[in-house]
Amino acid sequence: MRMSLEISLDFYESLKEAIAQRADEKVKAMLEPVRAEDLSAILYELDTDDCVFVFHLLDDETIAEIVANLDEDTRQEFLRNFSPAQTARWINHMDSDDAADLLNEMPLKTREEILAFTELEVARDINDLLRYEEDSAGGLMAKELIRANVNWTVVQAIEEIRRQAEEVEKIYSLYVVDEHNLLLGRVSLKKIILASDQTRIADIYEDDLLAVKTYEDQEDVAEIMQKYDLEAVPVVNARGELMGRITIDDVVDVITEKADLDRQLMAGISEDVEEDDSIFALTRARLPWLIVGMAGGLLGARFIGFFEADLALLPAMAFFIPLITATGGNVGIQSSSIILQSLANKSSFMRGNFLLRMGKVIAVAIINGLVIGLVVFAFSFVLEVSVQLAITVSIALFFVVILASIMGTITPLILDKMHINPAVASGPFITTANDLLGLAVYFTVAHLLFKF
Amino acid sequence: MRMSLEISLDFYESLKEAIAQRADEKVKAMLEPVRAEDLSAILYELDTDDCVFVFHLLDDETIAEIVANLDEDTRQEFLRNFSPAQTARWINHMDSDDAADLLNEMPLKTREEILAFTELEVARDINDLLRYEEDSAGGLMAKELIRANVNWTVVQAIEEIRRQAEEVEKIYSLYVVDEHNLLLGRVSLKKIILASDQTRIADIYEDDLLAVKTYEDQEDVAEIMQKYDLEAVPVVNARGELMGRITIDDVVDVITEKADLDRQLMAGISEDVEEDDSIFALTRARLPWLIVGMAGGLLGARFIGFFEADLALLPAMAFFIPLITATGGNVGIQSSSIILQSLANKSSFMRGNFLLRMGKVIAVAIINGLVIGLVVFAFSFVLEVSVQLAITVSIALFFVVILASIMGTITPLILDKMHINPAVASGPFITTANDLLGLAVYFTVAHLLFKF
Repeated sequence: MRMSLEISLDFYESLKEAIAQRADEKVKAMLEPVRAEDLSAILYELDTDDCVFVFHLLDDETIAEIVANLDEDTRQEFLRNFSPAQTARWINHMDSDDAADLLNEMPLKTREEILAFTELEVARDINDLLRYEEDSAGGLMAKELIRANVNWTVVQAIEEIRRQAEEVEKIYSLYVVDEHNLLLGRVSLKKIILASDQTRIADIYEDDLLAVKTYEDQEDVAEIMQKYDLEAVPVVNARGELMGRITIDDVVDVITEKADLDRQLMAGISEDVEEDDSIFALTRARLPWLIVGMAGGLLGARFIGFFEADLALLPAMAFFIPLITATGGNVGIQSSSIILQSLANKSSFMRGNFLLRMGKVIAVAIINGLVIGLVVFAFSFVLEVSVQLAITVSIALFFVVILASIMGTITPLILDKMHINPAVASGPFITTANDLLGLAVYFTVAHLLFKF
Repeated sequence: MRMSLEISLDFYESLKEAIAQRADEKVKAMLEPVRAEDLSAILYELDTDDCVFVFHLLDDETIAEIVANLDEDTRQEFLRNFSPAQTARWINHMDSDDAADLLNEMPLKTREEILAFTELEVARDINDLLRYEEDSAGGLMAKELIRANVNWTVVQAIEEIRRQAEEVEKIYSLYVVDEHNLLLGRVSLKKIILASDQTRIADIYEDDLLAVKTYEDQEDVAEIMQKYDLEAVPVVNARGELMGRITIDDVVDVITEKADLDRQLMAGISEDVEEDDSIFALTRARLPWLIVGMAGGLLGARFIGFFEADLALLPAMAFFIPLITATGGNVGIQSSSIILQSLANKSSFMRGNFLLRMGKVIAVAIINGLVIGLVVFAFSFVLEVSVQLAITVSIALFFVVILASIMGTITPLILDKMHINPAVASGPFITTANDLLGLAVYFTVAHLLFKF
């Protein structure tokens, strides 16, 4: 029995030394107890020559698993060092969904070259999977599953399990089909074990089964599996034929990627970057939204410019510019984040109508606006500004909170209708828009109240 | 075979009508095909009397599942309508982890009253689970699992599965222990099915098994299960004794909750609220961070106040205040979000040393700062401001980008060391701090360059 293996820096250092010395036996012995998932992490740190050396010490099955675990960029770069025939040998050992993902990343020519070398059955499965959109249930599923004809006996089903045991690593259920491959239900392995050999599958299978269609969105699949606590879900085509199976590990990755993507969008990062990416990649991912924010800032500067005369008369007006813009930004992000949460949780089937929702948003905004307006009014005396300016700021803040709430609520809903990820609405976009909105409200209120 | 059930508004309306008429048979017939997970969603929409009516039509097992699915607040409010004896009857049907979670939410007195009515074995399991911290592996695990002695034969193991079949709904593996309950390894159900009856467990079990300790953090458990694609992981105590099992469905919830919490913190929402919570709850969750932002804004106002004389001489200085604060905020959030991603992904075991990381952060910041500074310098001519002011703004922006990058990088690292959720650093906190930082840089540079 073994605890989870944390690779220590010591281990890594001595491994690197052994690799540098090309000490075959030593490296082999060191890597022997390391899991494929941890080997991938190690390979990220090695240069290509060292990787190639390590690979010739490992068996194809382990390499297949490592390659399946690598991230897209590294994998593509890495596989360029190997021939299509070599890559095909690894693909023969991969699960069909991982193999299809890998080939999907490749130029069509390379893909065809590799498929020419894979086993016939493997190539057929992969070609079948390549037909589906990457983010659909079909793109997520694997072909590996155990299919049992409804007319079989338990002993026949067990024979099928034995035949496929190598191929299908994780078996939770047998999917029961008729002679036309129409999905009828499932039998859990538990039931198979407890049934007598001659029991008919027809007598023990559950027909109350959740299945997803090949064209369903992967996020909907994730929601279904999460809601009903499923470890696997069968995938059927429009005719109801059993096409594949999605397992929970792939769905967990979908959930994590979605959360990461939302966080990036909220933070105004336009590409999937990590701390250890290159300086160039990091800059490229960050500049676009910074430029958007800058454009907003320049527009704001232009706008305040219209009030230069007012400012010359009352420079204290400038004191409150950061307060106004910050409040607008903060309120907008809060509002859009609450809507984001609602959109993510589609299963709440009763959201009430749009006007009711907006009414509530405005009610919350009025309370927040009143509190903030009053507190700022009180504190403006500490800042020794005129009562007139204090009133201006408070009134402006009140309206900024309300308008920013409405903007923050409506923007993600509109983006979602336009099939743009609504998380964009919680990022620099909303902050920039609300900065401008806030300035407009503030200077308009000031201009009216002071009758410059 | 059935597709995932979407509850339609029509169905809900006619159900509500039937409930209002207290039409026992009709309601029963309507609810019969609905899964427990969907029943929970319906119950959220009913008032307490209607819920109680619906409950008397359902069997204890279904109710147990519904109650386990409710969220904490609703559940507590709801259970107040039932006696401890009644609650105990439902708890008898729950998985031990769900039961422990439920009792954990209750006052000690109620908890003891309920436990007094549960079956002895159930109470023992629950009491065992209540000992662990809620966010540890022990707090996440369930006691339901199949334990096989290493000296058994396959047929003995199957007998054990039969004995426990009712209790343990999902069986993936048998956990193999010695006579002292020390965990030795596991056998998959697949292997059990394919082995002959008289095969000894000792000959077929895998000893290369991942297990977690009771005291491990639930987020570490989630990371391990995700990395190694596990559908279940056994939990052992410090002595290595098998204590329970964590299944992937609970870990998926951990991952989702963590993502939701991070998003809330980034958006400056201090409590777990949803769109359909009360106006009061929504306001309470939003005001704290708005007040923080406001305090920052007032400090900013105070700070700009020091430069009132400068502003009177050159009102155009105020034009660029939103640009400066927005840029600082955007850069800060980007930086902290990248660090957040690194912190979440602890498995990258080689992050390099701190100085190298900061060097890279500063390199990226210098490039971004140069680009933004130059673009703004170019555009300032469109705005018809003096060359001197354009230079001031550009230089200030350059330094703001660098300082905000450093702040955004260091803050989450410090929070993490202090065991505060580092996602706080990507919220209004960093924006407010960077607003102030930006203002300080801008007015200092201006004061120096213009020699007011």
